[in-house]
Amino acid sequence: MTHPAPPPHAALQQPARAWFESLRDQLCTTFETIEAAQGGQPHFVRTPWQRPTDDASPGGGGVMSVMKGKVFEKVGVNVSTVFGTFSEEFRRQIPGAEEHGGFWASGISVVAHMRSPRVPAAHFNTRMLVTSRGWFGGGGDLTPLRLDTPEAATDAAEFHAAFRTACDRHDPAWYPRYKEWCDRYFFLPHRNEPRGAGGIFFDQHDSGDAKADLEFTRDVGRAFLQAFPSIVRRRMPEPWTPEEREALLYKRGRYVEFNLLYDRGTLFGLKTGGNTEAILMSLPPEARWA
Amino acid sequence: MTHPAPPPHAALQQPARAWFESLRDQLCTTFETIEAAQGGQPHFVRTPWQRPTDDASPGGGGVMSVMKGKVFEKVGVNVSTVFGTFSEEFRRQIPGAEEHGGFWASGISVVAHMRSPRVPAAHFNTRMLVTSRGWFGGGGDLTPLRLDTPEAATDAAEFHAAFRTACDRHDPAWYPRYKEWCDRYFFLPHRNEPRGAGGIFFDQHDSGDAKADLEFTRDVGRAFLQAFPSIVRRRMPEPWTPEEREALLYKRGRYVEFNLLYDRGTLFGLKTGGNTEAILMSLPPEARWA
Repeated sequence: MTHPAPPPHAALQQPARAWFESLRDQLCTTFETIEAAQGGQPHFVRTPWQRPTDDASPGGGGVMSVMKGKVFEKVGVNVSTVFGTFSEEFRRQIPGAEEHGGFWASGISVVAHMRSPRVPAAHFNTRMLVTSRGWFGGGGDLTPLRLDTPEAATDAAEFHAAFRTACDRHDPAWYPRYKEWCDRYFFLPHRNEPRGAGGIFFDQHDSGDAKADLEFTRDVGRAFLQAFPSIVRRRMPEPWTPEEREALLYKRGRYVEFNLLYDRGTLFGLKTGGNTEAILMSLPPEARWA
Repeated sequence: MTHPAPPPHAALQQPARAWFESLRDQLCTTFETIEAAQGGQPHFVRTPWQRPTDDASPGGGGVMSVMKGKVFEKVGVNVSTVFGTFSEEFRRQIPGAEEHGGFWASGISVVAHMRSPRVPAAHFNTRMLVTSRGWFGGGGDLTPLRLDTPEAATDAAEFHAAFRTACDRHDPAWYPRYKEWCDRYFFLPHRNEPRGAGGIFFDQHDSGDAKADLEFTRDVGRAFLQAFPSIVRRRMPEPWTPEEREALLYKRGRYVEFNLLYDRGTLFGLKTGGNTEAILMSLPPEARWA
């Protein structure tokens, strides 16, 4: 990158990137195995993309991986590593970008929209950011069709327990804080309703021990890799009705509303000339409004 | 209202409101007549709503009219008349609201999503705003599935000609200005594509002759009432394929993206505690993303 990152995060750039790409591989393999058990043969299709480059912003890029199957109606797993210089507008908004505006960012982002209304949708992402400072961010949240069923309670409990374990391994204060942040973040004020059953959300995570923070980020990824496929396997054999499927499509309309009205990553990405296809891969394949 | 509007717009509040409600009746009748010619019997369902009131913002409300038919998959016609006091945040953004923050607003808003991919979608709205100043705003735009067909050119020509005639009756400088404003406004930068075939868009229209400006606003409404039903009648007999219908659903995804990412009325309405159902009535009944 143009402006070398300061220690200690500089030394973690390549290990972080390698982890995000390894996690991508593990998630894709797991999701493909679930599809194969249903007799299907869908596979992830990988599409690399390059960030448009200029003198001020040298570039980087990423790889979109998308699978459309019987269980996963549409699941996208993006990895990207980009670097350059923030515009003047963004320098004031990004910690550590005030000085030279240089940045390096690497991360993974996952959104799964499921065919069955009995299987919750899920979102997960983690990333490492380096400006004149360095930090990690990310989280995961689960979106069942309904919150008021015993099944939803069971699934949410497993999802939250996995993240709690990942957090508690590092600091018992983090899970309550990051769960609460998730509840606050994934909320639709204009509908006065939560997006789903929550999870964790964190940003500018910098404990002072960058190596430990990367390990925490790995543990959060492992938690998602463990919990979400387990929930999918439990719910996918359940039969469902056309009425439930219809209700799912309306629920997905709310998902679209959240992502386009409020999601910071989406709005930031679109405003900074990010890869539109990769950013909007989070949108569901089909949605309805009343 | 709390703060009486200054002349000359004060005297036009009730005539403006009456016009918007009369235009609503004429549009609904016309659209119901089109449906009846197809052998259907769908009618507009009217739902009144009240603006939540408090001491600072006395209220008002509106009526949503929605029809779901064979030709009009979903068409909504909203009228509303609201009044109160802008929050401190918005006083700085709204002309004439700096002083006492009082406002009165009345308008009509129409969005039609059509079942046939051969019939373009359409949006239209006009409104009168009064703060310590007064003005009109609005416009209409047409969204065909494709822009590069002879049919799209014919329809766009009729749509634009009607608005040009309405404008030219008042000032020949307005149509070119308001057409260009529409092209600039209804554009998706993240897709680098226009929303559709354009039309006209205007805001803070205040020629200095408020009565003439209301008459201009009436003429713009009459133009839409003439041109859009004519286009619908021309295109609705055309047969269409499932592939075209599928393409329409993806095109509608772009419509959702525009309204939730960029549309000022949508974002302003949701942020100022407007009626969510009425504001989001613009969203299509069904949409897809790749």
